[in-house]
Amino acid sequence: MRIEAVDVFYLRMPEVLDIGDGSQDATLVRVRAGGLVGWGQCEASPLTSIAALVCPMSHSACKPVAASVVGQRLDAIADIGRIGDAVRAASLDLLQAEHTLSGIDIALWDLIGKRLGEPVWRLLGYPRAYPKRPYSSVLFGDTPAQTLAKARAARAAGFTAAKFGWGPYGRGGVAEDREQVVAAREGLGRDGILLIDAGTVWGDDVATAALRLDALREARATWLEEPFHTGALDAYATLAKRSAPVAIAGGEGSHNQHMARHLIDHGGVGFIQIDTGRIGGITPAKAVADHARAAGVTYVNHTFTSTLSLCASLQPYAGMERDEICELPTEPKALSLRLTRERLVPGGDGMLRLPESPGLGVTPDPAVIREFLVDTEIRVAGKVLYRTPAIDG
Amino acid sequence: MRIEAVDVFYLRMPEVLDIGDGSQDATLVRVRAGGLVGWGQCEASPLTSIAALVCPMSHSACKPVAASVVGQRLDAIADIGRIGDAVRAASLDLLQAEHTLSGIDIALWDLIGKRLGEPVWRLLGYPRAYPKRPYSSVLFGDTPAQTLAKARAARAAGFTAAKFGWGPYGRGGVAEDREQVVAAREGLGRDGILLIDAGTVWGDDVATAALRLDALREARATWLEEPFHTGALDAYATLAKRSAPVAIAGGEGSHNQHMARHLIDHGGVGFIQIDTGRIGGITPAKAVADHARAAGVTYVNHTFTSTLSLCASLQPYAGMERDEICELPTEPKALSLRLTRERLVPGGDGMLRLPESPGLGVTPDPAVIREFLVDTEIRVAGKVLYRTPAIDG
Repeated sequence: MRIEAVDVFYLRMPEVLDIGDGSQDATLVRVRAGGLVGWGQCEASPLTSIAALVCPMSHSACKPVAASVVGQRLDAIADIGRIGDAVRAASLDLLQAEHTLSGIDIALWDLIGKRLGEPVWRLLGYPRAYPKRPYSSVLFGDTPAQTLAKARAARAAGFTAAKFGWGPYGRGGVAEDREQVVAAREGLGRDGILLIDAGTVWGDDVATAALRLDALREARATWLEEPFHTGALDAYATLAKRSAPVAIAGGEGSHNQHMARHLIDHGGVGFIQIDTGRIGGITPAKAVADHARAAGVTYVNHTFTSTLSLCASLQPYAGMERDEICELPTEPKALSLRLTRERLVPGGDGMLRLPESPGLGVTPDPAVIREFLVDTEIRVAGKVLYRTPAIDG
Repeated sequence: MRIEAVDVFYLRMPEVLDIGDGSQDATLVRVRAGGLVGWGQCEASPLTSIAALVCPMSHSACKPVAASVVGQRLDAIADIGRIGDAVRAASLDLLQAEHTLSGIDIALWDLIGKRLGEPVWRLLGYPRAYPKRPYSSVLFGDTPAQTLAKARAARAAGFTAAKFGWGPYGRGGVAEDREQVVAAREGLGRDGILLIDAGTVWGDDVATAALRLDALREARATWLEEPFHTGALDAYATLAKRSAPVAIAGGEGSHNQHMARHLIDHGGVGFIQIDTGRIGGITPAKAVADHARAAGVTYVNHTFTSTLSLCASLQPYAGMERDEICELPTEPKALSLRLTRERLVPGGDGMLRLPESPGLGVTPDPAVIREFLVDTEIRVAGKVLYRTPAIDG
């Protein structure tokens, strides 16, 4: 079959708040081929990702993403990798391209899974998808008391693991950060898996980050996530040498598999966190999962939006039994909560299971798309390059 | 003074060809503050870079670039670094942001140079700007005969160094590539500095790249540039160990200083090539130049468009006497050739000298901007987020 169309939709909440919550808008991708439809999502700026899809060519290595996708053959799994390689070559100098490609690659896997009648994880070579232990992923409260309440709520909801991040953490003093971490541990209980996310707040400043290690050890945090910008390899490596038994986690900012491999090979991370909506999709994420396994590093999904993104993020390591924990956004905004007809929720044993149905196993709800759809138009030299596409159904 | 406005202009040739020539369009940046105007240029997709400037906020770490620039104080040089840091933090998840920031950072340096009455290179701490030995930067011909003619033309024009890149190189067989390189050497003469640019054609395939080394040694090439994608550090390091006396060059794809530092620290490059229009501007480029000097790696500018970009690209290493060679695009399209009132051409001794006048020392010509300006409009939810700004003068 040939790829007939790639459409990107800009969805958002009526109000977008200035907080570290990526579930407030969505870059939804629809690919059509052979009478089938595949869906994907980029964890990226919708307008900028649309521009990367449709922008006029600047030169032979700065072409719009659509130019390397629409019209291509999609018959076998290998075609997905070929299309991704073509995008990376023809859009080499188009920085946003890898974010746009992410949603397309995911939609191609969904589509070919539907075509072949198999779930994506099986097409990736996994005989089965193991249950994952979800951690509740929430923002720190503005105060330790709020964080305590959030941690208690996570525990009451049946979570055995929880991650607290962003908000005030790393923006005040060492004592304030300690109080936040202690409150999280208290609320989660003695046995819960506690994860702390610094959201790159220290740039590449190892000394300032290291001041938080004692409190993290005291609270028995399993990892400290993203102390630094994804590119600050030396800072990662230096902190990792001093942080035991707290591991360093990172990688969500990787927009190609090289960046993630560098964190594994040169950055000393114990957990590599990959967002399939940013790294270029499921294809490069699977390559990172394989590399991590060989290097003895644990793979974890990164995701903070819809069930569609969640399902995509779990595929690359679905069959890796020992890499057990997974991120589950537990405070998504209505748009992200309601985007798909299906929701993925932990079972009675607290574990999360991927659908066995073909493709990703989840489908966006046309009525919800329409409800949150943002009318968008881009004109260049009198020509409409993009106008919000129609939604069927 | 406060930054009053940041405007981005999309310029392009009437026809954009599917060739490796980045001079066919331009992303021009104008910053206004305190009654002064600074100019910069991104080497990036114009439409996508504009979208990154004006896109609606997605969350606290995915804001439009303009949000961190407009209204900021600009009194001292340190303010430029502070503004860049603010963009990198508030637009952390907006991949294209660093390309957009590049032109803004350059414009801020131009503006503050005008305010202080000093050329940018002096504000960077250099007592003087040393003359640079320009290499003629051209595309390989489609045939060895065409390449021979191009090399002879470069020599006849007084160049003692020339770089040939892209086109058929690396896309055919080893024998064809050898003929191209031999033709370039023959045309350039025995003593000319010959540089070869593979334009990332081998991805991360070391074995295929290594097949070209014998011909490069035979032709006494000084460097092989970009055999691989900027992120393929291990491939760079492996090839660099086998390539002597041919050095490996790379780095133009760096969109932050971390990437360039990795190529120096872990990739084994002998020459680090930085495009100020992509790495985030003159500020991070200067940091890379300092790091390269400490590591014994030679810094070279990368630039392929206008005299404005050329002048910006030369500032970070203007005062480094030993890092002598520089890129000079010699086949730019009319837009890039005519964009600035001033042109930078080699002196009678074949050497290139930066202007001593304040800022970058070059100014775009309003008539030329108008001639190549592309009318562009972006609407989101019924609101015009971008419309091509007016040109004064």
